[in-house]
Amino acid sequence: MKYGEIITSRNNPLIKLYRKLSSSKKERSSLKMFVLEGVRIVFDALKENAPLCRIFITESACLRYSSELERYEADNMAVTVISDELGSYISSTEQPQGIFAQCRMPEQISLDSFVKKDKKYIVLYKLQDPGNAGMIIRTADALGIDGVIFSESCDVFSPKVIRSTMGSVFRLPLLQAADINEVFESFAVCGIRTYASVIDKDAEDIKSADFSGGAAVLIGNEGNGLPEDISESCIGRITIKMHGNIDSLNAAMATGIIMWELKKFE
Amino acid sequence: MKYGEIITSRNNPLIKLYRKLSSSKKERSSLKMFVLEGVRIVFDALKENAPLCRIFITESACLRYSSELERYEADNMAVTVISDELGSYISSTEQPQGIFAQCRMPEQISLDSFVKKDKKYIVLYKLQDPGNAGMIIRTADALGIDGVIFSESCDVFSPKVIRSTMGSVFRLPLLQAADINEVFESFAVCGIRTYASVIDKDAEDIKSADFSGGAAVLIGNEGNGLPEDISESCIGRITIKMHGNIDSLNAAMATGIIMWELKKFE
Repeated sequence: MKYGEIITSRNNPLIKLYRKLSSSKKERSSLKMFVLEGVRIVFDALKENAPLCRIFITESACLRYSSELERYEADNMAVTVISDELGSYISSTEQPQGIFAQCRMPEQISLDSFVKKDKKYIVLYKLQDPGNAGMIIRTADALGIDGVIFSESCDVFSPKVIRSTMGSVFRLPLLQAADINEVFESFAVCGIRTYASVIDKDAEDIKSADFSGGAAVLIGNEGNGLPEDISESCIGRITIKMHGNIDSLNAAMATGIIMWELKKFE
Repeated sequence: MKYGEIITSRNNPLIKLYRKLSSSKKERSSLKMFVLEGVRIVFDALKENAPLCRIFITESACLRYSSELERYEADNMAVTVISDELGSYISSTEQPQGIFAQCRMPEQISLDSFVKKDKKYIVLYKLQDPGNAGMIIRTADALGIDGVIFSESCDVFSPKVIRSTMGSVFRLPLLQAADINEVFESFAVCGIRTYASVIDKDAEDIKSADFSGGAAVLIGNEGNGLPEDISESCIGRITIKMHGNIDSLNAAMATGIIMWELKKFE
């Protein structure tokens, strides 16, 4: 681990880069890097051997965490100490913990190598809320789902999603797929049946659904659900029967219950 | 509905009262009132005939929502117009929608009248996060759980919990019980079996648990789970087997899955 000089200027190019990666999806995509903030997620990334290229740590946080940091062998990683003021400047939280990192994105593999026979997948189509996306990744990891595909959804690598995955983003197979039709094709090639998750009392009750073999469930936007054409492209339509108001089941919670049922067929 | 004069002063007693109710649990308990903020939750409260005693609306929001407000017959409710500046002042969100309400707490019924034979309950013991509490209330409402009991947990009537329940707080039977031993006694009297939710691979897998008849599941603190003595006071110990890291399952998500399984026995 290499320590550089203390950075104090907002105009330092490393600080400018961090801020760009934090705020811009375009920047993240073109540089194939993203940022992490907070003690928990940075140490999770170290434990999971995530490809961190730089850690920023404030002077105050340095006193607290430098010995713990030293425990990790990370030859290619630079540790840059920044002033506390700069820590507040680059932080996206109200009470910054003073530790930040820059991480390389995993190599995006092709859909065809991502999708495998007899496995269970979740596809998020136009899901927008980063908190929901993070919670779904976290739960998919806990329950042992084989992969989550993001299509036209919020950016997996936005700081908010990353934070709310609580480290699961470094463990769970994730894919960003721009074209949903290609996703359907890959599933078809592998014999994976596709199910649209809908709010419709005439759809099949998830309690009686048969998810044996390969299965993928598509989850739509929080407000609008799945568009009709996407839902019709699926082999089945499943629903969670509700007692209360239809708004009572949050998208992440519904997806959690769906994943729970999916995993019973193994 | 009665409109008063426009309030512009931070020292107005109504504004001072709103702020106290918003920030202090003690104040809420002694006055038996709580506050709501936001278009969605205030209109949900009106739809569910919640006992609102006053609505505050900013001048800007008034232009947008006053005709919709007029639709509700609420004879005992005053509508007070406040300046936009005051709206920002009393708001607990960064982008206030300019509509707030003061609501009377439902009469707290006794544990003995709350707990009924053959029903399904969730007990939150020392659960701290308002977002988790709100999500649990919302999901319990969606899935048709018969009641949620809060014991030594965060305040059900804090603005954060109320907001994250998305209106379910007005529909779901809720009880605050100071003494957990009395909760156990009431369950025993009604023949309701109690289960401790734990992270322990030796506990009974929730997939094979038999929740027929009356059943209550106790959920502990996010970081520490249930204390040993509480867990031992329960008839059974259940767990959700996990694939990933034990931290991967958030408390609200775990409770959602438990409620889903509970409701299969009806």
